[in-house]
Amino acid sequence: MEYTRDELIAAVSSGMPAKRWKHTEGVMETSVLLCERFGADPQKGDLAALLHDLAKYWPIGEQVAVVRDNNLNTDLLQHDKQLLHAEVAAFVSRRDYGVEDPEVLDAIRYHTSGRIGMTLLDKIVCLADYIEPGRDFPGVDKIRDLAEHSLDEALIAGFDSTISFLIEKRKVIFPLTMLARNDLIQGLKR
Amino acid sequence: MEYTRDELIAAVSSGMPAKRWKHTEGVMETSVLLCERFGADPQKGDLAALLHDLAKYWPIGEQVAVVRDNNLNTDLLQHDKQLLHAEVAAFVSRRDYGVEDPEVLDAIRYHTSGRIGMTLLDKIVCLADYIEPGRDFPGVDKIRDLAEHSLDEALIAGFDSTISFLIEKRKVIFPLTMLARNDLIQGLKR
Repeated sequence: MEYTRDELIAAVSSGMPAKRWKHTEGVMETSVLLCERFGADPQKGDLAALLHDLAKYWPIGEQVAVVRDNNLNTDLLQHDKQLLHAEVAAFVSRRDYGVEDPEVLDAIRYHTSGRIGMTLLDKIVCLADYIEPGRDFPGVDKIRDLAEHSLDEALIAGFDSTISFLIEKRKVIFPLTMLARNDLIQGLKR
Repeated sequence: MEYTRDELIAAVSSGMPAKRWKHTEGVMETSVLLCERFGADPQKGDLAALLHDLAKYWPIGEQVAVVRDNNLNTDLLQHDKQLLHAEVAAFVSRRDYGVEDPEVLDAIRYHTSGRIGMTLLDKIVCLADYIEPGRDFPGVDKIRDLAEHSLDEALIAGFDSTISFLIEKRKVIFPLTMLARNDLIQGLKR
């Protein structure tokens, strides 16, 4: 990797409002903690969390351009534009910051949507994004409790809260999120 | 068609408990009413409703065999077995009762799951199944109210109640149902 951690922090934090950087710090802290709890590499968890929202405050047009111009997952362009930033962050982490570890890049790429067959690191970063200390939405404490003992149970509860929120707001449910949730439930039954 | 309506009623009602036949009569009545309200052919609505649950009380093994042996939608075999009866009913309606109208057969086939691009008759039979007079689940009266003026709004509320129920019960959400719901929401925005 071409950048030190401090350089990455400087680059990423300068591209977002202070409040969002504070959220990112919370995700980093929680991600490391979950890595230690569930047996993943804390350095990878820290790095993925550091980079996960780097494109969150880019203008949507710019995010669309990155996806389109680089032949990324253009299926995303049919859905809520809030999903683009994860795909863009994974791409930029590699192109601009030299991150080559596919585990880290996937954890960044799927941190919002989830996917079928989530890796341990995917799950940790996604869950850390739900429950970092700054998060305060109905049901977050229940998810934090579940995260004490089961990564999958906590993540299912997280996805369920997202799906219920989208139903309440009459918004489209991203299919991959529902498939990720179904996959976790089926995994627990196996 | 080779059978009179009375003959179909005799055949279908003899294959289910009295309580389920009462439900079927409720769906027929509601389906005809919705056809008149929203401009579909009431005869088709009546016929699809009459036949929609004909396989509901078949042993699951027999339903699986029909799907497998006749190369029907085998994807269904991966999901909750409760979904099979609709596919089986459509197949049997054609094979054993001579129903050839694809609109009627599709309304039977998709009455539980829904699908992307639902026809007017698909929507009516699916909604009638949610709100027939014998139905009594939390939120059914809200769906009935919506059905007074909007087929799509009522059906979205129906699917949302199903998805919320499956979340609550920690059950897998059938992807097609979520896609059907998303499609209706996107249709209203167009």
